[in-house]
Amino acid sequence: MKQKIAIYPGSFDPVTNGHLDVINRALRIFDKVIIAVGDNPEKKALFNVEERLEMLNSITNSLKNIEIDNFTGLMIDYAKKKNADVIIRGLRAVSDFDFEFQRALMNRNIDENIETIFIMTAGEYCFLNSSIVKEMVRFGGSVKGLVPIEVERALNKKLN
Amino acid sequence: MKQKIAIYPGSFDPVTNGHLDVINRALRIFDKVIIAVGDNPEKKALFNVEERLEMLNSITNSLKNIEIDNFTGLMIDYAKKKNADVIIRGLRAVSDFDFEFQRALMNRNIDENIETIFIMTAGEYCFLNSSIVKEMVRFGGSVKGLVPIEVERALNKKLN
Amino acid sequence: MKQKIAIYPGSFDPVTNGHLDVINRALRIFDKVIIAVGDNPEKKALFNVEERLEMLNSITNSLKNIEIDNFTGLMIDYAKKKNADVIIRGLRAVSDFDFEFQRALMNRNIDENIETIFIMTAGEYCFLNSSIVKEMVRFGGSVKGLVPIEVERALNKKLN
Amino acid sequence: MKQKIAIYPGSFDPVTNGHLDVINRALRIFDKVIIAVGDNPEKKALFNVEERLEMLNSITNSLKNIEIDNFTGLMIDYAKKKNADVIIRGLRAVSDFDFEFQRALMNRNIDENIETIFIMTAGEYCFLNSSIVKEMVRFGGSVKGLVPIEVERALNKKLN
Amino acid sequence: MKQKIAIYPGSFDPVTNGHLDVINRALRIFDKVIIAVGDNPEKKALFNVEERLEMLNSITNSLKNIEIDNFTGLMIDYAKKKNADVIIRGLRAVSDFDFEFQRALMNRNIDENIETIFIMTAGEYCFLNSSIVKEMVRFGGSVKGLVPIEVERALNKKLN
Amino acid sequence: MKQKIAIYPGSFDPVTNGHLDVINRALRIFDKVIIAVGDNPEKKALFNVEERLEMLNSITNSLKNIEIDNFTGLMIDYAKKKNADVIIRGLRAVSDFDFEFQRALMNRNIDENIETIFIMTAGEYCFLNSSIVKEMVRFGGSVKGLVPIEVERALNKKLN
Repeated sequence: MKQKIAIYPGSFDPVTNGHLDVINRALRIFDKVIIAVGDNPEKKALFNVEERLEMLNSITNSLKNIEIDNFTGLMIDYAKKKNADVIIRGLRAVSDFDFEFQRALMNRNIDENIETIFIMTAGEYCFLNSSIVKEMVRFGGSVKGLVPIEVERALNKKLN
Repeated sequence: MKQKIAIYPGSFDPVTNGHLDVINRALRIFDKVIIAVGDNPEKKALFNVEERLEMLNSITNSLKNIEIDNFTGLMIDYAKKKNADVIIRGLRAVSDFDFEFQRALMNRNIDENIETIFIMTAGEYCFLNSSIVKEMVRFGGSVKGLVPIEVERALNKKLN
Repeated sequence: MKQKIAIYPGSFDPVTNGHLDVINRALRIFDKVIIAVGDNPEKKALFNVEERLEMLNSITNSLKNIEIDNFTGLMIDYAKKKNADVIIRGLRAVSDFDFEFQRALMNRNIDENIETIFIMTAGEYCFLNSSIVKEMVRFGGSVKGLVPIEVERALNKKLN
Repeated sequence: MKQKIAIYPGSFDPVTNGHLDVINRALRIFDKVIIAVGDNPEKKALFNVEERLEMLNSITNSLKNIEIDNFTGLMIDYAKKKNADVIIRGLRAVSDFDFEFQRALMNRNIDENIETIFIMTAGEYCFLNSSIVKEMVRFGGSVKGLVPIEVERALNKKLN
Repeated sequence: MKQKIAIYPGSFDPVTNGHLDVINRALRIFDKVIIAVGDNPEKKALFNVEERLEMLNSITNSLKNIEIDNFTGLMIDYAKKKNADVIIRGLRAVSDFDFEFQRALMNRNIDENIETIFIMTAGEYCFLNSSIVKEMVRFGGSVKGLVPIEVERALNKKLN
Repeated sequence: MKQKIAIYPGSFDPVTNGHLDVINRALRIFDKVIIAVGDNPEKKALFNVEERLEMLNSITNSLKNIEIDNFTGLMIDYAKKKNADVIIRGLRAVSDFDFEFQRALMNRNIDENIETIFIMTAGEYCFLNSSIVKEMVRFGGSVKGLVPIEVERALNKKLN
């Protein structure tokens, strides 16, 4: 039995409890899970890559078989370099699906050997994404229960 | 019987005949309908909030049980402050639905007591939104029948 | 202020906790809610109309402003006869939406004065419908927490 | 490292090249894949369970780490009995997704420990399902390239 | 310039104003339009093929460049035999789309030379299909404006 | 028989093999196909209109019955001016459909005489659009097989 490595790429700007839910589910299925923070200079982020890595490290430090990393360039190239067997994507709703489907087909077109699989987030996180979280803090709303406590603090510091 | 108050939030940049259709349907169902113009400094608007309120007031001045207002911050907080029982959202197509569903779940997460309900626009407005209207005027097209006459004039003045 | 009457039509074969969730939400919005069991001879039902009415009566007997009834023929004709202002439909997922949209447009085509509105069920019921419940009992699974206890008993009696 | 067992349930009435594609992808990700033919007496099948198992065995006899089996009752109960870590579902299109999403949430509701994951079939099989294959043979069309040669023969024998 | 022949296949059980709308649009685009009534013994129809052909002939007898015909077997084989260049499918809503997409891909897989194109029905017919029409008449509702007058009469005769 | 003219509007920034696939299919159906590059000053393009026209001309110069042109203003006005009978839109996925449906209804609202029809791209291009192509080149990926060789060269020159 070869060790199975899964990669979970994303912006994580910031990580939410929905992401954490996917990470925990992935850890039950795969031998190692790499959380890969994409560093896309075209996309304006609230937190820089270092801050995002720091938050992820702090939140997942009790979890085993996990690696926190960042990448630039094509995600599929990074996945290949890390010997990943599988790319993990979280699904919340139908609107996710269509976009994710296209991405997965494109990635398969580049490298047939790395499979994309989809994991559903828990029902209670199906409305949750990083943009909504940032918007809520910006407008003075509470995000308790939607993000880890460290992220809540970082958001309040950054946005208020 | 307690008076039932519905809030209809949106950008209304500008109000279209599709919005008016939803407003008229909502007035048949609820005792009072508050049209709430969201003032989102992050979103670049064509008309400023004062202009949008003025257009809405002018267009709805023959309607009873209606209030035109604006808000900043989280809509659900505003709805609570106004003692609203219900948030109204218009639906035109499946693509609306997914986004609206996520918003409604998020709002329910913040306040269980205010329910979001969805009303369909009339079939003839199912392609209509404020962006399409602005784009058409910008490219020299006519929007007769798609927006009230006051809005048509304001659009032509602003864009041509 | 005229009393606002909402009708919630369905097969309720049998009623689930998802239906109950919609009923409770509707009662907070409208002055009276009529649960209307459709008697469609074309559709093979597990419980006959009397059994379905009995279950609904038993489950909702602590709720106020509610009426349990059945109808044959076109639902919109029945709604008119009952002076309903609004037809309520629960939404769980995008696949519901498309079908419901077509029904609502058809009903509006027959009678413009009765509006169809959509209410979302709670996230935890978004996978739930009467067919899944019947299938689970048929295959020996538990439906605890998915249907009221009376319904659970009736299902076990009927199917095992 | 614990061995990871995936279960791929379905009717397989009959197995298509789309199913085979999912099986091959699953074998690259998991240590063992159980193909589980559901024996649902409510659903009228073209091939009986024995015929379906025989076709699956014949088609996959060069593949390692695979088990062909059948089950009655709830699939999730069967998955538990087999110590499966993961349920695999193939996705072809958006219409699949909605149904699959509801099933996956229901299964998670019954047993939190077995995760459902979704794998995409190859683009060339995205129109393919067992019903279309049966319909084509029934109407005299060729299904070459859509199903394994053994299945093609069995279909022609059964339907013509 | 070669004459362009389009085929519009369907059950037409019975033809609705939505179908007629698609036929009229197709006639503006193609040199000849063949309305092809599918004779599927597996599907229980309300009107037999002769009745459906008769209704179609009567309704379209003022239209030029049209042929009413029926077929058995695979539609794509029939289309080939008739030298059709194009298969026309009407689209009303997203739920149509997914099914139609799969059919079109399957047909392209059989014969690359016959293209499937999609035409939208007018907004006012987007809720309309033959099943809804039959259901309405069955329950005593009026279908005026939804089907041609001949069809309305035939439905009332058949169902009441 | 009047000559049938189809217009295929788009940004073509840059043209992909998916676009070419639609163009080739359209040429089999219509007597003349006009590829119309939209010049939208609001949308930031990678290639200017001249460059896009040049690439299109170079790629299609072996094709007959084709015209490469550009337009500003409303596309439907341009279509009218060119005496087009039909507007062609390529469909890849459900997410396209919803947007395209709204556009088509809007255009029909402006001019009833020009029909919009939808053509599916080949399965292998269903993940492909100009944005993905640009993103891949930007991140150092190869787009061989996704765009014509001239476009590949132009992308590499522009982005690297």
